[in-house]
Amino acid sequence: MTHAKTDAVSAWLSYRPEIHVLDCTIRDGGLMNNHLFDEAVVKAVYQANVAAGVDIMEFGYKQSPDLFDRSKFGPWKFCDESDLRSIVGNNETDMKISVMADAGRCNLERDLMQSADSVIDMVRVACYIHQVPEALDMLQLCHERGYETTINLMALSAVPSDEWQRAIATFGQSPAKVIYIVDSFGSLYSEQVHSYIAEFRAQLTDTDKELGIHAHNNQNLAYANTLEAITKGVNYLDASMAGLGRGAGNCQMELLMGFLHNPSYHLRPLLNCIQTHILPMQEKLKWGFDIPYMITGQLNQHPRTAMAFNESKDRGDYVAFYDSIMSED
Amino acid sequence: MTHAKTDAVSAWLSYRPEIHVLDCTIRDGGLMNNHLFDEAVVKAVYQANVAAGVDIMEFGYKQSPDLFDRSKFGPWKFCDESDLRSIVGNNETDMKISVMADAGRCNLERDLMQSADSVIDMVRVACYIHQVPEALDMLQLCHERGYETTINLMALSAVPSDEWQRAIATFGQSPAKVIYIVDSFGSLYSEQVHSYIAEFRAQLTDTDKELGIHAHNNQNLAYANTLEAITKGVNYLDASMAGLGRGAGNCQMELLMGFLHNPSYHLRPLLNCIQTHILPMQEKLKWGFDIPYMITGQLNQHPRTAMAFNESKDRGDYVAFYDSIMSED
Repeated sequence: MTHAKTDAVSAWLSYRPEIHVLDCTIRDGGLMNNHLFDEAVVKAVYQANVAAGVDIMEFGYKQSPDLFDRSKFGPWKFCDESDLRSIVGNNETDMKISVMADAGRCNLERDLMQSADSVIDMVRVACYIHQVPEALDMLQLCHERGYETTINLMALSAVPSDEWQRAIATFGQSPAKVIYIVDSFGSLYSEQVHSYIAEFRAQLTDTDKELGIHAHNNQNLAYANTLEAITKGVNYLDASMAGLGRGAGNCQMELLMGFLHNPSYHLRPLLNCIQTHILPMQEKLKWGFDIPYMITGQLNQHPRTAMAFNESKDRGDYVAFYDSIMSED
Repeated sequence: MTHAKTDAVSAWLSYRPEIHVLDCTIRDGGLMNNHLFDEAVVKAVYQANVAAGVDIMEFGYKQSPDLFDRSKFGPWKFCDESDLRSIVGNNETDMKISVMADAGRCNLERDLMQSADSVIDMVRVACYIHQVPEALDMLQLCHERGYETTINLMALSAVPSDEWQRAIATFGQSPAKVIYIVDSFGSLYSEQVHSYIAEFRAQLTDTDKELGIHAHNNQNLAYANTLEAITKGVNYLDASMAGLGRGAGNCQMELLMGFLHNPSYHLRPLLNCIQTHILPMQEKLKWGFDIPYMITGQLNQHPRTAMAFNESKDRGDYVAFYDSIMSED
């Protein structure tokens, strides 16, 4: 079979060793089941990621048990060291382990031990625009305790540009290694992804920050937008098996790994985990592209109305959802 | 809610009146059921397209009954005038009606009446690279009988570039109004879409040909690639309701119509048709993104092996499909 010989083809035949793939299957998927995964599933995802050559696996959140009742959530809401070790032992692999810490929802001073004593390698700090000062303090604390860090500014598409530009410039002076473009509403088109990347870079001149992307699939563009970020030099890529994640889900790991031509990545172990452990959860957890998420994405709205609708008896009545959204103030 | 004010945003806020949306739900979807749709479904799709402001609706093929047994296929394999009129009457609407004619599979000399006597407005000629001379004859015949025409060169991604470049240059001298970029294998990435568009244009200088795109969803990029084509000035866009089409299906009409901001397009009638008539067929017809199509798409292969696998008892065993493809010569 002969391929068209174009510059584009020759470009995608190569690979960029600086790329890091982060699996957020259990972390973002945990938003669909209060982090109540069977331990066998978490173990299978870990083992598949190791076999597939995934660079980083994120298990969950480092939220405070003062704010969330342990009896109502699975262990991956809190990521206690003992729970992590029950899956990964001492993690004697090349894969790093990350957790997410939300501004306003955790007590890292108390709950985050020194990196030297933990299997956690990286803490990803997530915040909204009004939480930037707290996020900076969290980044500093994680850095002092020896962790790699990233900063994920959520709901970016709903923040006025002068505000997020100042936030990104501030993060440029923080210890964060990676600054993420987070498409919380799944509302971005490729041109906007390109534009954010260029504008993030403009705020980060004279720093060595890497960029990352965390896409949502509300408009079925999570994978496409991740590819667009790759072509513009973004090196930290979030994805999840079968797209498991909140609402419409994330960039599908199997698509991404099938695209990346780094020979240290392997698709087969992911397919095995997906068919054995992930897709059997879909009937209950019901993540993935669906028209209500499409509608909130097209309107650059938080998907909470679509998620509530999809948990109601009216699921599937797209016209009713459309009418309810269009009749809102 | 405040949007980031970027150039990209201001660009997508506008619309381009030259864009024509073509619905191929019944035509491409007919490949999944031998064109055996309930008449009520075809009528509902027609009415929804009219209400939604769709520019062109394609009903099916104009294949020869000498080659295909009428008892084994529905009427949309042949698109007899009487069958079309049973749905559209005299089509007293602003929407045009198209049919597809495959080189090597039809007898237009006998089966295509004069345009003045038909509700058909447009004939889309589809061919493989070895059928270019026959396709040119078909275009000429359709033109002489008064039809608008397009040419759809299939399996483009598997044709050496010097061959398709000569074919496109030849089509530039034909009566075809629109020349389509057809991603038969769903294998294209955005950079390749851009590249094909530029190279098609290079072969069509000094002509007034329009470009079109027909994308398949094997890698979940049908909508994304259609958007990329829009940004590069492609004005004829194929889509289908809920993506109904062969294998992984097509660009989803609801995504496309929710993106295009031309006020003459309307999403609601499409949603109503999708939930009432299209999605109820999905359990039986099983079109849409699935990992075997992803694998053939990633390898730039025809999806026939994936389609056969998905019709077998092994459907869902992705590892078995992956192993079978990887062990082939």
